Amino acid sequence: MQRGNEAMGTLTGPWKQLLVNALESNVHLKHSSFVQLATIGSNGRPSNRTVVFRGFEENSDKIVINTDTRTRKIYELKHHPFAEICWYFTDSWEQFRINGRVDVIDGSNTDPVKLQQREKSWFASSVKSRYQYLGPNPGLPVPSDQPQKEFFLDPSAGPVGAFCLLVLDPDQVDYLNLKRNQRVTFTSRPSVDVEKCWTSEIINP
Amino acid sequence: MQRGNEAMGTLTGPWKQLLVNALESNVHLKHSSFVQLATIGSNGRPSNRTVVFRGFEENSDKIVINTDTRTRKIYELKHHPFAEICWYFTDSWEQFRINGRVDVIDGSNTDPVKLQQREKSWFASSVKSRYQYLGPNPGLPVPSDQPQKEFFLDPSAGPVGAFCLLVLDPDQVDYLNLKRNQRVTFTSRPSVDVEKCWTSEIINP
Repeated sequence: MQRGNEAMGTLTGPWKQLLVNALESNVHLKHSSFVQLATIGSNGRPSNRTVVFRGFEENSDKIVINTDTRTRKIYELKHHPFAEICWYFTDSWEQFRINGRVDVIDGSNTDPVKLQQREKSWFASSVKSRYQYLGPNPGLPVPSDQPQKEFFLDPSAGPVGAFCLLVLDPDQVDYLNLKRNQRVTFTSRPSVDVEKCWTSEIINP
Repeated sequence: MQRGNEAMGTLTGPWKQLLVNALESNVHLKHSSFVQLATIGSNGRPSNRTVVFRGFEENSDKIVINTDTRTRKIYELKHHPFAEICWYFTDSWEQFRINGRVDVIDGSNTDPVKLQQREKSWFASSVKSRYQYLGPNPGLPVPSDQPQKEFFLDPSAGPVGAFCLLVLDPDQVDYLNLKRNQRVTFTSRPSVDVEKCWTSEIINP
């Protein structure tokens, strides 16, 4: 087993640069933007599902995900706002475990900046993918006699009620590189009135 | 959005057959046996990492994973034994969310059948992968002056102390097929002295 601290000694940047590099080197794979988001279920058990990374919030390391307000994860996050993303890159054999608090931004949000961010994400997604927010309530049973509804969506219309954003604010990141057998943890120290301050430590894989 | 209940009407088998089919149709991808296992962390937050599916326990639908007793997930599972696997198949666009109780089988187990199962999994894994259980404690800092240790492992020797199994006994499975836009939940009813009894329901994706 390699110790790895020598090769990692060159890593002076934060974890975000490692993630940006991984995204670049796996960009040819459509699924490289798919991540697994774990939350605490209403029964106290872990809950885990695949979601799509939609980018970082502007000038930050916060992770943006589009979702439907009617899904179970929204209920879960309102009761327990912490989540961990597990992001495995199948080509470069890198894993990021990103833990932090999640902000749910729906249409009832009172912050105009957040509402603008929600609108921006809506228009950044394809018209086809916007249609899913008009469909029947996710997770509810399909009645056998349910008629197939037809929807029409004006491409210039803003976000529908069911559309919301999850914005994960990371405070702990565990990075594993299986090709190099290297692992680093990044931890942000809480600080008052200043940017988050990250420290890192090389640990055994 | 497709209703899907017609096409799924042919699904009379349990979820295990769907999973076996998905494994077969994605067998050309090495990462198709990689799954994300979510647990409850010691701080009460979700914890999520990639692990490798090693097969089903004989004649059952229990899922077997090899791991190191010194990893954080063992501590977490001893305090909160429930986990959810999220398994996304990148080629067939199928997702399985498998929730259940996890049994940790290490060398101190008093059940001879379980110890035999642990030994079987040890010998089923490659000699190279057995070496990782001899390495330094996963998750602990790498001291800068730590000498690189050399290990020798007799290929005929049984499992080392750090080797253990996780056996997840599913009681809830959420299956999503993104190509067909279909979703089914499977729930096992607790029953006394008989095999688990599964019911299924077609739900909105």
